[in-house]
Amino acid sequence: MNNYSKRAPVGIVGFRGYSGAELVQLLKRHPAVDIFLLEHRSDSEAPPRPLGAQPLITIPATAAAVKQEGLAVVFLATPAEVSMELAPGFLEAGAKVIDISGAFRLSDAGTYRRWYNAEHSAAQLLDEAVYGLPEFYREKIVPARLIANPGCYPTAANLAIRPLIEAEVVDRTRGVICDAKSGVSGAGRKPSLKTSFCEVAENFSAYSIMEHRHVAEVLQHSCLGEREFTFTAQLIPISRGILETIYIRTQRVEKAVDLLSIYEERYANEPFVRLYAPGKTPDLRAVQHTNFCDIGFVYDAASQRAVIVAAEDNLVKGAAGQAIQNMNLALGFPETEGLL
Amino acid sequence: MNNYSKRAPVGIVGFRGYSGAELVQLLKRHPAVDIFLLEHRSDSEAPPRPLGAQPLITIPATAAAVKQEGLAVVFLATPAEVSMELAPGFLEAGAKVIDISGAFRLSDAGTYRRWYNAEHSAAQLLDEAVYGLPEFYREKIVPARLIANPGCYPTAANLAIRPLIEAEVVDRTRGVICDAKSGVSGAGRKPSLKTSFCEVAENFSAYSIMEHRHVAEVLQHSCLGEREFTFTAQLIPISRGILETIYIRTQRVEKAVDLLSIYEERYANEPFVRLYAPGKTPDLRAVQHTNFCDIGFVYDAASQRAVIVAAEDNLVKGAAGQAIQNMNLALGFPETEGLL
Amino acid sequence: MNNYSKRAPVGIVGFRGYSGAELVQLLKRHPAVDIFLLEHRSDSEAPPRPLGAQPLITIPATAAAVKQEGLAVVFLATPAEVSMELAPGFLEAGAKVIDISGAFRLSDAGTYRRWYNAEHSAAQLLDEAVYGLPEFYREKIVPARLIANPGCYPTAANLAIRPLIEAEVVDRTRGVICDAKSGVSGAGRKPSLKTSFCEVAENFSAYSIMEHRHVAEVLQHSCLGEREFTFTAQLIPISRGILETIYIRTQRVEKAVDLLSIYEERYANEPFVRLYAPGKTPDLRAVQHTNFCDIGFVYDAASQRAVIVAAEDNLVKGAAGQAIQNMNLALGFPETEGLL
Amino acid sequence: MNNYSKRAPVGIVGFRGYSGAELVQLLKRHPAVDIFLLEHRSDSEAPPRPLGAQPLITIPATAAAVKQEGLAVVFLATPAEVSMELAPGFLEAGAKVIDISGAFRLSDAGTYRRWYNAEHSAAQLLDEAVYGLPEFYREKIVPARLIANPGCYPTAANLAIRPLIEAEVVDRTRGVICDAKSGVSGAGRKPSLKTSFCEVAENFSAYSIMEHRHVAEVLQHSCLGEREFTFTAQLIPISRGILETIYIRTQRVEKAVDLLSIYEERYANEPFVRLYAPGKTPDLRAVQHTNFCDIGFVYDAASQRAVIVAAEDNLVKGAAGQAIQNMNLALGFPETEGLL
Repeated sequence: MNNYSKRAPVGIVGFRGYSGAELVQLLKRHPAVDIFLLEHRSDSEAPPRPLGAQPLITIPATAAAVKQEGLAVVFLATPAEVSMELAPGFLEAGAKVIDISGAFRLSDAGTYRRWYNAEHSAAQLLDEAVYGLPEFYREKIVPARLIANPGCYPTAANLAIRPLIEAEVVDRTRGVICDAKSGVSGAGRKPSLKTSFCEVAENFSAYSIMEHRHVAEVLQHSCLGEREFTFTAQLIPISRGILETIYIRTQRVEKAVDLLSIYEERYANEPFVRLYAPGKTPDLRAVQHTNFCDIGFVYDAASQRAVIVAAEDNLVKGAAGQAIQNMNLALGFPETEGLL
Repeated sequence: MNNYSKRAPVGIVGFRGYSGAELVQLLKRHPAVDIFLLEHRSDSEAPPRPLGAQPLITIPATAAAVKQEGLAVVFLATPAEVSMELAPGFLEAGAKVIDISGAFRLSDAGTYRRWYNAEHSAAQLLDEAVYGLPEFYREKIVPARLIANPGCYPTAANLAIRPLIEAEVVDRTRGVICDAKSGVSGAGRKPSLKTSFCEVAENFSAYSIMEHRHVAEVLQHSCLGEREFTFTAQLIPISRGILETIYIRTQRVEKAVDLLSIYEERYANEPFVRLYAPGKTPDLRAVQHTNFCDIGFVYDAASQRAVIVAAEDNLVKGAAGQAIQNMNLALGFPETEGLL
Repeated sequence: MNNYSKRAPVGIVGFRGYSGAELVQLLKRHPAVDIFLLEHRSDSEAPPRPLGAQPLITIPATAAAVKQEGLAVVFLATPAEVSMELAPGFLEAGAKVIDISGAFRLSDAGTYRRWYNAEHSAAQLLDEAVYGLPEFYREKIVPARLIANPGCYPTAANLAIRPLIEAEVVDRTRGVICDAKSGVSGAGRKPSLKTSFCEVAENFSAYSIMEHRHVAEVLQHSCLGEREFTFTAQLIPISRGILETIYIRTQRVEKAVDLLSIYEERYANEPFVRLYAPGKTPDLRAVQHTNFCDIGFVYDAASQRAVIVAAEDNLVKGAAGQAIQNMNLALGFPETEGLL
Repeated sequence: MNNYSKRAPVGIVGFRGYSGAELVQLLKRHPAVDIFLLEHRSDSEAPPRPLGAQPLITIPATAAAVKQEGLAVVFLATPAEVSMELAPGFLEAGAKVIDISGAFRLSDAGTYRRWYNAEHSAAQLLDEAVYGLPEFYREKIVPARLIANPGCYPTAANLAIRPLIEAEVVDRTRGVICDAKSGVSGAGRKPSLKTSFCEVAENFSAYSIMEHRHVAEVLQHSCLGEREFTFTAQLIPISRGILETIYIRTQRVEKAVDLLSIYEERYANEPFVRLYAPGKTPDLRAVQHTNFCDIGFVYDAASQRAVIVAAEDNLVKGAAGQAIQNMNLALGFPETEGLL
């Protein structure tokens, strides 16, 4: 672990939510940052667990406070509408902004309106925002002021699908199907009947079939057309973790190792993507509480069918961990600092 | 199973809650009742699961509707304040009322005020209300118009403790300790952070230590004084079931079988209390989805310590099942009808 | 509920397993049978929960005992190799046999060998065995001596897929994908690391991708070719329930209601198949502890994509409940007796 | 975080079990150790999760290998009989041994025989072994060669009870009751019906009432007599965490803050004991994945009853974390290194 002569002050809005609290937990292990909790009026509940022995500094979630403390980065673990409200002022105040909401992920206001069914109130920033998937946009993330941290589902989906699309081994006429399952923390911390214990426990259900807003992110970054990509979101009765089972038909692939070598080449130097031998697929335990996205597959050469399984922790690689990975890039720290 | 020439029409208010929905499920197996769902303004959510193939009749939760349909019994699976509002009119309309809330369980308005921290709005009915624990009050239940179905925790506690108090084998100077654990459905169906999946899952916590309102019911029916009875409520990350671990010191008990024989005598003819051999104690699986309360214990003769374990399904013997047991008594059906 | 002048004596081998114990629970509510527990040497553990207040009669799992008691039906809730060993003698002894294992589900010994990787030791019975999926083989089940109760996964899969295949609205060149998820009881009760609590809890994993032995049953009854049907089995960290998400491309279907009407026609008189309005899909809670298979779907007319969700309780419609449904047919009782 | 000029080589036997795997995970974050996996013939299963990106060095679990690598510490995350077999040779080979089993926790061979129902095969080491509860035996741990890491239940029990015994505020004539609940990982990783998913999930049960072998450790270190301490172990359907609800009657305590101040004085400088304000008690989420033991209580001054709740992660403060705390002491590292 490196020694840092200078520590960067970083702020977190939304530290009472699951992603925000995870950010605090993870950043406390990061050797080069000082943590500021930014208190926003929309917060009220106690944090999901004690934030630690030493109390952290709390300041208001205002541009003035961001400026006064000279925050290098502010993480927004907030609803999209709060992110759109806060981001402009924080950027103005000199901080880089890493937004964990969906506010700045889509390319333009029209696409946002369609999938989020709402007007974008900070559309002037959409051109500038960089999609924070380091495995594909590292060079753009380094200098970016505004980083849109990817959605939890699209992170795993794009990591699993895009290398195969780029290598042109997917028979796109047959479509790509992503059957996704997520732990409940992905739905946020606001109480609702849908995430009440007795409704979720011992249960399993599908939702937003073919119309989940995360589909837009996959389309944008995988180059698939809307009719080529079928996505089902499903709720597993556990707290954290996403597993996606992806079905494709290949072309120009003779055997399993050919498929593997496409992934291997693409991810040879990626610290947070782990590949499995053909025939082996990850479970959630392999990735929970880590920033890894694990990918494995089973391939039937005779019929050219591939079933790919990608797993990640929705709160880490799917949210807080990837946000820190982006921060490391944006502040010039080693990309894995605090994450291994 | 008997044949009934005449079926009794019975109504349920609060069928969208967990206890109410359980009532509907159980009553559908009862051969001698016709079910009416009584729609109350305080309801809004969809029921927790499909109510079945054949749609049930829904009528307003009003005294006029109760009278018009000639309901023999109305179950109130409602908050206490709604029960206090509805019970007088329904009794007036000629129905017997079985209330699953805490509204009519305590002996007087003052005791209610102290434990529920609210005024009683139907105190005139408290004298008439009968505590619906059949194992102890069967004769009073049969003719009663208003039956106060016991709380989930007190049902198991009273069944486990009272026979020993009556037999004068409890060393009351040492106190009685009840360490109680409940599944989450006991907290009702209204969404709250405390019963949100991610707060409860993989967790375990104590609440209302020494001040749970159910203590009042145990004191009232076990003859214990307030300082003699220590009660801790705790939340198990499961949907249903209550297990209570009870600690006493005995007097005048030589060996384990002496303790057992006290229970055996008391419960010889009770269809819903099952006793275990000394040294064996029930788990929740034994009682879930049944109307049984199972009781077992471990006894150390040398030190006169007894650890008693009582288990029940909080939604059945602790709520809907016991309510049907009371209905069977009140309407003259065999006590076990629809419950075995 | 009918009155039966004569009750049928029925036996259960394997009552200590999950399917067998479920059979006992369900049969105890059946008004027309007397239950015999058949004790087999391969059993040893205590049953998963108390079998009830009244002790049941236990006899040896031998042809002689079956004959002596004149059992009308024997249920085999046993591993396939035990079923192959016991079935011939029990048939000889005059009982009808309903086998819950995979022993008699496949059409011939070669197919069995391929998918079960073992020799069939009672192949002479394969021709006679009837596949016990009442919705498709009711007429054959009624007179059958040997009924092969369908596997848990294939029950839901065939009910969801076959009507569409028969109606020729599936574009088979695009394949049928079934992403299946099951509770852990489907793996049986024998302890193994794979079904240990700490390995399964908070986890989710895929297994037997494209090579699960249940695939053979779907192929056999859905008329799909092996390369047309892709099946993934996955383990949900819950005890019971199967949910299958099925992806097809249609042909000759204009809108969602056209798809629904195919199902409605096919299942108009089926008591245990429930259909949902287009856009609605079942969760597991809707079917747990019931003999229903619920089917819903979302349809995108523009791209002719249908995502179908089928849900059942693997221990009921997927095992014990369907076995009783078959028994009702074979013994001339109303098909729903004891199951609603 | 300090920089260490020299890293200590440490070994782990039993890295495929839950405690051993947790040790590996935690030690990978420790800046001053190099990890060696010691392969023992009794191991066979794959580890519970990937051990990380970089493969770790594996050597045989023999004294020769320990000597050759010059291991400073060997952790034994093994059954007691394996620990008794390995410890003597590893000490001989120059390593300090930190044993996570119960082999060296009790004071003499007779006590071991009584509670473990087996002969001790390395009794010559019992005098030398130091009980590794740093909060009470820090000075002895620093120079010790053989450290007996405390049991999971006794760690929380002793931390919660002993300060009050020492302060003489417990009315010992009334006894001390500890109602303990544990996640399933405490039972180890060997498959058994008792820890199978479908037996544990949605269930709750008590076991070893008044006769759990961990009682011996509490008696030994709390100064309570056997008849003064009543202990019930119970299984929560979760993977990790212990919560103990402890009931005492006090003497010489006027109000809640007096009780708190006893704890505060005792634990003023303890980095891993957190105290709660009177009336607040910890839940498991507060301590999971941490090395903290959290203690809170509710006090009723009128009746002198105190209900104390202590919570810890059985795999961390109750096993692997405390073992590292002991290692830090024994090797001269800061006590909290790698644990905050």
